[in-house]
Amino acid sequence: MARKTIRAGVIGATGYTGAELLRLLVSHPQVELHAVTSRTDVGVGVADMFPWLRGNTELRYVSPDSALISECEVVFFATPNGTAMTQVPDLLRHGARVVDLSADFRLRDAGEWQQWYGMPHTATELLPEAVYGLPELFRDQIRGARLVANPGCYPTAVILGFLPLLTAGLVKSSGLIADAKSGVSGAGRKAELGGLFAEMGESFKAYGVPGHRHLPEIRQILGGIAAHPVDLTFVPHLVPMVRGIHATLYAELTTEADLQSVFETAYASEPFVDVLPPGAHPETRAVRGSNLCRIAVHRPGLGARVVVLSVIDNLVKGAAGQAIQNMNLMFALQETAGLDGIAVAP
Amino acid sequence: MARKTIRAGVIGATGYTGAELLRLLVSHPQVELHAVTSRTDVGVGVADMFPWLRGNTELRYVSPDSALISECEVVFFATPNGTAMTQVPDLLRHGARVVDLSADFRLRDAGEWQQWYGMPHTATELLPEAVYGLPELFRDQIRGARLVANPGCYPTAVILGFLPLLTAGLVKSSGLIADAKSGVSGAGRKAELGGLFAEMGESFKAYGVPGHRHLPEIRQILGGIAAHPVDLTFVPHLVPMVRGIHATLYAELTTEADLQSVFETAYASEPFVDVLPPGAHPETRAVRGSNLCRIAVHRPGLGARVVVLSVIDNLVKGAAGQAIQNMNLMFALQETAGLDGIAVAP
Amino acid sequence: MARKTIRAGVIGATGYTGAELLRLLVSHPQVELHAVTSRTDVGVGVADMFPWLRGNTELRYVSPDSALISECEVVFFATPNGTAMTQVPDLLRHGARVVDLSADFRLRDAGEWQQWYGMPHTATELLPEAVYGLPELFRDQIRGARLVANPGCYPTAVILGFLPLLTAGLVKSSGLIADAKSGVSGAGRKAELGGLFAEMGESFKAYGVPGHRHLPEIRQILGGIAAHPVDLTFVPHLVPMVRGIHATLYAELTTEADLQSVFETAYASEPFVDVLPPGAHPETRAVRGSNLCRIAVHRPGLGARVVVLSVIDNLVKGAAGQAIQNMNLMFALQETAGLDGIAVAP
Amino acid sequence: MARKTIRAGVIGATGYTGAELLRLLVSHPQVELHAVTSRTDVGVGVADMFPWLRGNTELRYVSPDSALISECEVVFFATPNGTAMTQVPDLLRHGARVVDLSADFRLRDAGEWQQWYGMPHTATELLPEAVYGLPELFRDQIRGARLVANPGCYPTAVILGFLPLLTAGLVKSSGLIADAKSGVSGAGRKAELGGLFAEMGESFKAYGVPGHRHLPEIRQILGGIAAHPVDLTFVPHLVPMVRGIHATLYAELTTEADLQSVFETAYASEPFVDVLPPGAHPETRAVRGSNLCRIAVHRPGLGARVVVLSVIDNLVKGAAGQAIQNMNLMFALQETAGLDGIAVAP
Repeated sequence: MARKTIRAGVIGATGYTGAELLRLLVSHPQVELHAVTSRTDVGVGVADMFPWLRGNTELRYVSPDSALISECEVVFFATPNGTAMTQVPDLLRHGARVVDLSADFRLRDAGEWQQWYGMPHTATELLPEAVYGLPELFRDQIRGARLVANPGCYPTAVILGFLPLLTAGLVKSSGLIADAKSGVSGAGRKAELGGLFAEMGESFKAYGVPGHRHLPEIRQILGGIAAHPVDLTFVPHLVPMVRGIHATLYAELTTEADLQSVFETAYASEPFVDVLPPGAHPETRAVRGSNLCRIAVHRPGLGARVVVLSVIDNLVKGAAGQAIQNMNLMFALQETAGLDGIAVAP
Repeated sequence: MARKTIRAGVIGATGYTGAELLRLLVSHPQVELHAVTSRTDVGVGVADMFPWLRGNTELRYVSPDSALISECEVVFFATPNGTAMTQVPDLLRHGARVVDLSADFRLRDAGEWQQWYGMPHTATELLPEAVYGLPELFRDQIRGARLVANPGCYPTAVILGFLPLLTAGLVKSSGLIADAKSGVSGAGRKAELGGLFAEMGESFKAYGVPGHRHLPEIRQILGGIAAHPVDLTFVPHLVPMVRGIHATLYAELTTEADLQSVFETAYASEPFVDVLPPGAHPETRAVRGSNLCRIAVHRPGLGARVVVLSVIDNLVKGAAGQAIQNMNLMFALQETAGLDGIAVAP
Repeated sequence: MARKTIRAGVIGATGYTGAELLRLLVSHPQVELHAVTSRTDVGVGVADMFPWLRGNTELRYVSPDSALISECEVVFFATPNGTAMTQVPDLLRHGARVVDLSADFRLRDAGEWQQWYGMPHTATELLPEAVYGLPELFRDQIRGARLVANPGCYPTAVILGFLPLLTAGLVKSSGLIADAKSGVSGAGRKAELGGLFAEMGESFKAYGVPGHRHLPEIRQILGGIAAHPVDLTFVPHLVPMVRGIHATLYAELTTEADLQSVFETAYASEPFVDVLPPGAHPETRAVRGSNLCRIAVHRPGLGARVVVLSVIDNLVKGAAGQAIQNMNLMFALQETAGLDGIAVAP
Repeated sequence: MARKTIRAGVIGATGYTGAELLRLLVSHPQVELHAVTSRTDVGVGVADMFPWLRGNTELRYVSPDSALISECEVVFFATPNGTAMTQVPDLLRHGARVVDLSADFRLRDAGEWQQWYGMPHTATELLPEAVYGLPELFRDQIRGARLVANPGCYPTAVILGFLPLLTAGLVKSSGLIADAKSGVSGAGRKAELGGLFAEMGESFKAYGVPGHRHLPEIRQILGGIAAHPVDLTFVPHLVPMVRGIHATLYAELTTEADLQSVFETAYASEPFVDVLPPGAHPETRAVRGSNLCRIAVHRPGLGARVVVLSVIDNLVKGAAGQAIQNMNLMFALQETAGLDGIAVAP
């Protein structure tokens, strides 16, 4: 049987998410990476931009309006927020399918989107159609989707941690706390003082406590699971490391349950969620470069409080890997195709 | 006026806490560092053990039973748990005053101590007398104390963060959450696989979720402030950095209050607690090497949840610096003597 | 055509080199990982020892004398120095082929081995037969070898950097300098104070300046290339990172040459040596997790001094990856089989 | 006796060098920090820019042409290259004395300066007068200087390492090699992609191999010591840490000598150079935050090659600390005043 090959394009692949997408796409057995665009670096070799890709691709950046993009069956957006919504309508009309790694299609409510992202949404007609690309929650819808809104990195780690508890109705939906810690690649590849090694090294801090854009995204999905609004406090922090997210989640139990078994059952058939044995503490390095989410559930002192520890690689399961997983589903490939790399540790 | 000079000894100064104590003691204007002991390194130069001290002290380690110790007015214990309780009674009898940086005298209940530390307490008669060495809470008692139990590093950061809220009765004493993150020096200077750079580098994890020894210590003190038992969930994490603790604290408000003002008032006259302006996020590096605790208080979305961010250097305000502060109080020196070093950053 | 499958065993796979070997072996398309041994951890699951392997292998450690080992066609030694030489003779007699990642068979001179490794060599009869496993230099001999001595990490980076210069006779063989920097995983997975994060973090130092065991190994190979003894100064350093070696090499030119072209020609057909364009500076992250050696050659100020920059991942091309490459050659597999993982960066 | 108090100003204190200067100046017992300027941040509180200084200064940035500067007895320039030369002539005319931490007055030859710094020198008349501020070499001239050119960070570490060898005429002045490694704060506080944590973390690389601006500076001084031009190869590298420089220096001995004794004698009376015992390897952390240069000298295998290991804190002895040391000399204060902080480690 002949292997199906998908022609793929990437819009705006000069950030870390884009680079990781390229790493995964060039080694995906059923993908032909057809075009990679950049507004600012047309003509530059992809491997000159990201030297670790040298020897794996000869591609050069083309302009975002290159005809090559219109030849793609799937187009990934790894652009700053606000870009995809201007280009996606056209692409869909031409028959391409889209996985948007930016935030443009994650919130269903255009008003809320404008409030958090500071600009009006220009493709509101697509919001009802866009599928939130968390396969563990929306696998079937993703399969048929033309437009997938790839989840944010924090939301992926947080939602996968709360999901079994909320689905089973075991915890209060108020007083949820997500204390999340991210490596600095999550802040993107931007020339800003705050991201310097000399600013981030040997230091730890919270940020965005008054409000972070991933909060409404998490609330929307958790509210959907719970079937009513949830009350969530979300505090992100920056860890002096490059990759990895660790979400520490707190909720109040409303009923007795074998939590370990609840989690194991919930994720029994998930290829990319690994429920650790009782008493374990996942480390971010144990998912570095891989598409896994590793989770442990605890109930300290057998009290009312459940503590969930959830780790992902923010650039893989939190972005590029999940995007590939979504593409695999959309094109009826094996869900794990191109995503079997083992975490690189130590 | 002649300067008063205190003759000080340090028992067991081969760990990071001990090293930091030595750094602070040798530059303290009113202290003569008289003897430093080690069971395993008698005769070794202190500056050979800790090369950054070269040029600042010629001391060599002596045996813990050296007569030099009995000549000291103040003796610091920087020993593993279980050691101080065997030596302190004798020292007190001989008139020395003691600051114990280990956990031996932190818990009032000998049974609880045994439960968490895995051995019977052998100096229970001193437990009622020992003063918990958090000056912001027990300054007067410390002044008169013979025996000060220097707080743990996590407890210092956590208690100082909750203190104004509990004192003012603004939050529920149940459902308290302390999500704490520590640099790896907090794990001590022990030849263990888990502490290797290759294990800790570029990774983040929680540990001790089922139960950490600092939990009963924090509970005891917070319960004292609240005047009734508190329900606290405490989750410590390891950050890939050497120094620093960041505690992110969550509590539920029971009444309206100007939180910023509550914190500023509570700490208005404290030399080592810095309440940051509204909206700020303290960084651990901003206290590196200094005895400060920097704190910010937030109320995200003006909801019921208060979030306190509290940072200290685990080796200074979380250990050696606080010990010096306690000594200063015990000997009626200026409380800040020897503790005016500005944080070294970046 | 049916795929050939090699039955492989690993002796002593509880260190970082062993862990990396397991990561590569379990995903190698033509290898069946048959047995993994440990003296101290019999019965422990490999994935419990190295949690990032969870989901990729169900193997448990067996005793080094397990019958399973005798069923292997190829046996890798990832043991401390001095172990392989006691077991290899027997294995060879039973028909297995061996790749030894320890130092036991790297030096041809048993006396020199004893001098640097502090014990007598007990399998000197195998020294003439052992092939130094640097494919770029000894590819043909490796193909036919029963016993391959896998090179040290520093030697791999240093030799590949000097090789084109010495082969072409362009530099003096005296006054060679190799200033090498390694991530801390190179020091192994040993419970030692010196390897703690709190000792290595935010610091940089040289070590072993008076003499490092990799010096005679490098000298032996470079001397072989030059066809006479070379005079080399080798200074290793520790970098506060987990993986990666950067060798900065200095030599004095004796003749004019187009150095860039010399290097490009020398490595034109090498699958795992990447000569960077003129003026480039390789970064260790650009080979992280991959089997590549990336090299740049400079001639500052067009003077007499040539500077070569050579980077590898110490655990891959510097150990486990090169071992796989050697196995591929020994068993007539494609040389790159199982080694096509792209570097994981940032 | 009344203490002399120096009124000091800092031009351009928004970088790391400037921040460190402020840390040292505000705690200097004989300095009154009078004015701090910034072109871009007039009105901003210094402690808002550098939060670790909170509580130690209430100063706000003023404009570079503020009258406050003309009231200063000493003015430090912590500006980008090319700024000091435009302002210094005026300041000197008004009687101020100047320590310039930028490169403007380091090279004696205006033509060479223009070649390396890419702009014409506009204050060439001051070049003969400017004293190179390395006290170990030019202490007497510094005492009387109006204008001190504070050395670069690399030059400080490299020159102090070679100085005893060249002064004693023990090594060839050709074939000198300085393989230097720096923490990333050396690259300055600039919003550039290359300095991001995500670019620098867990990676190591050389840079500027074809030519770095510190090369002519080092050559000029070493040539002065040797009394003839030296041939030096200088290769800088970036270490994933914030602070610290480690220079590994190589030279060829021309005569027998007791190297240890040569170094100890050369620096016997130097307050800020610490010659380590034979066989030692200095670590950068052992000088973190302190003004010390720690040096070890080795002769591997008793061969012709001498290896010197020299470490400094690039922001202290490599910049701000040395500037204070120079000021102390210029104003006949104790040379160590304000510089007695012990290194903060681990």
